[in-house]
Amino acid sequence: MVIETLSTFPHMYDSVMGASMMKRAQEKGILDFKAYDLRDWTHDRHRTTDDDPYGGGAGLVMKCEPIFEALETLAPDSVAAFRGDEASVRDASAPEIILLAPQGRRFDDGYANELAAKERLLFVCGHYEGIDERVYEVADHVISLGDYVLTSGELASMVIIDAVVRKIDGVLGAEGGAADESFANGLLEYPQYTRPASFYGHDVPAVLASGDHGAVARWRRQQSLERTARWRPDLLEAAEARGDLSPADREYLLTLREEQDAVRG
Amino acid sequence: MVIETLSTFPHMYDSVMGASMMKRAQEKGILDFKAYDLRDWTHDRHRTTDDDPYGGGAGLVMKCEPIFEALETLAPDSVAAFRGDEASVRDASAPEIILLAPQGRRFDDGYANELAAKERLLFVCGHYEGIDERVYEVADHVISLGDYVLTSGELASMVIIDAVVRKIDGVLGAEGGAADESFANGLLEYPQYTRPASFYGHDVPAVLASGDHGAVARWRRQQSLERTARWRPDLLEAAEARGDLSPADREYLLTLREEQDAVRG
Repeated sequence: MVIETLSTFPHMYDSVMGASMMKRAQEKGILDFKAYDLRDWTHDRHRTTDDDPYGGGAGLVMKCEPIFEALETLAPDSVAAFRGDEASVRDASAPEIILLAPQGRRFDDGYANELAAKERLLFVCGHYEGIDERVYEVADHVISLGDYVLTSGELASMVIIDAVVRKIDGVLGAEGGAADESFANGLLEYPQYTRPASFYGHDVPAVLASGDHGAVARWRRQQSLERTARWRPDLLEAAEARGDLSPADREYLLTLREEQDAVRG
Repeated sequence: MVIETLSTFPHMYDSVMGASMMKRAQEKGILDFKAYDLRDWTHDRHRTTDDDPYGGGAGLVMKCEPIFEALETLAPDSVAAFRGDEASVRDASAPEIILLAPQGRRFDDGYANELAAKERLLFVCGHYEGIDERVYEVADHVISLGDYVLTSGELASMVIIDAVVRKIDGVLGAEGGAADESFANGLLEYPQYTRPASFYGHDVPAVLASGDHGAVARWRRQQSLERTARWRPDLLEAAEARGDLSPADREYLLTLREEQDAVRG
């Protein structure tokens, strides 16, 4: 997979993309990552990438011209379509252009799977500033990470890159599997423990050291159900709607509710 | 404000914390940032921080012992409470211990404001692995960034640090104000434009170049309302419930709905 970014702080990626999973994915040839410097497509002495907003107001707005000039090289088919060139066809090697913005589609595990199936992603990132609205017209994806604002669009893109790259076959090795983790089965993950068994009076649940694999599996499933019911009832409803709950799951949830009702009197 | 992190990849913070806003916040003395290496609190030759999970399964789990040993230094009052030391009192300089996990409270703009008012934050970050459940017992905050999984807890903490630090007085200068941006007033931000006025037939809305400040303010408010109604009707309902919509806002939204109904026939 090819992942490219276009921003004014390309070196912000260095220490995240150069370590751990990201580094190994690149060493294995699974990930081809490149952070482009938007200023390389400016032509003035100050390498200007932003300007005052039309209509006034505090802050600056990222200009569309350097971005589109960069896209001429990185994603020419998208630029041709923007210009109204009706003869333009989208090449199979064209990247999916991604912008991050609060009005975008909320990023989640399913969206990460969707992006992980693509050949090439290109993130266009602001930094402090808003981006001239016309750039949004060439975006294939406008993504929202959540209801908060980040100064560094680079950082926002790294979050999506991390969540996506770990989904690609061959990236996660023995260090971590994606099968049991939260969201993979639509529920929150069960609690995890490792040695020591006892720690200042806080003990590992006995069943986990029992060696009874069936009992362990049952306890973990019940913990997942209990946590999801408590913290994310919306996920539990969605799992039920998808038909992902077994008769044993439903029975356990019923018992839980009866216990809670009893506690409340 | 003091922000500390405890993880096995402390250098992953370097290029994000050493650039731009984060760098200047530290240079100005507003932010005191320190990334601790969890391995400094291990005692074996391999500096082991993780181990097999009780009950079996793929992947490793971060051990509680090095983390608690680090917290003895960084947050001794929290450890005393965990141990059941009833004489322990929480010092005013004690950090808020933050863990990130899917079952946590969803991070948003309001939560960023809440954390920005604290004196000292300490993030305990996993990397690949789950964290021994007993560590969650000393957390003051368990935060969820969204319904997706990140390999790098360091990266997840950087997102929160960015969203929080930019809220601290004196951090954002002339480059960007927080007053007009999305969520600050509970609505999505209006579109922004800068020069050129015309770009391959894609023009800046004429009102923004009109010099009529009242008309500009009205257009921007209406664009905010329209975008929020289209993409985030939940935010619009919340704004209405808080009494944040003016009679003019409500009139505009009514007109919008009538137009949409007319289009649908």
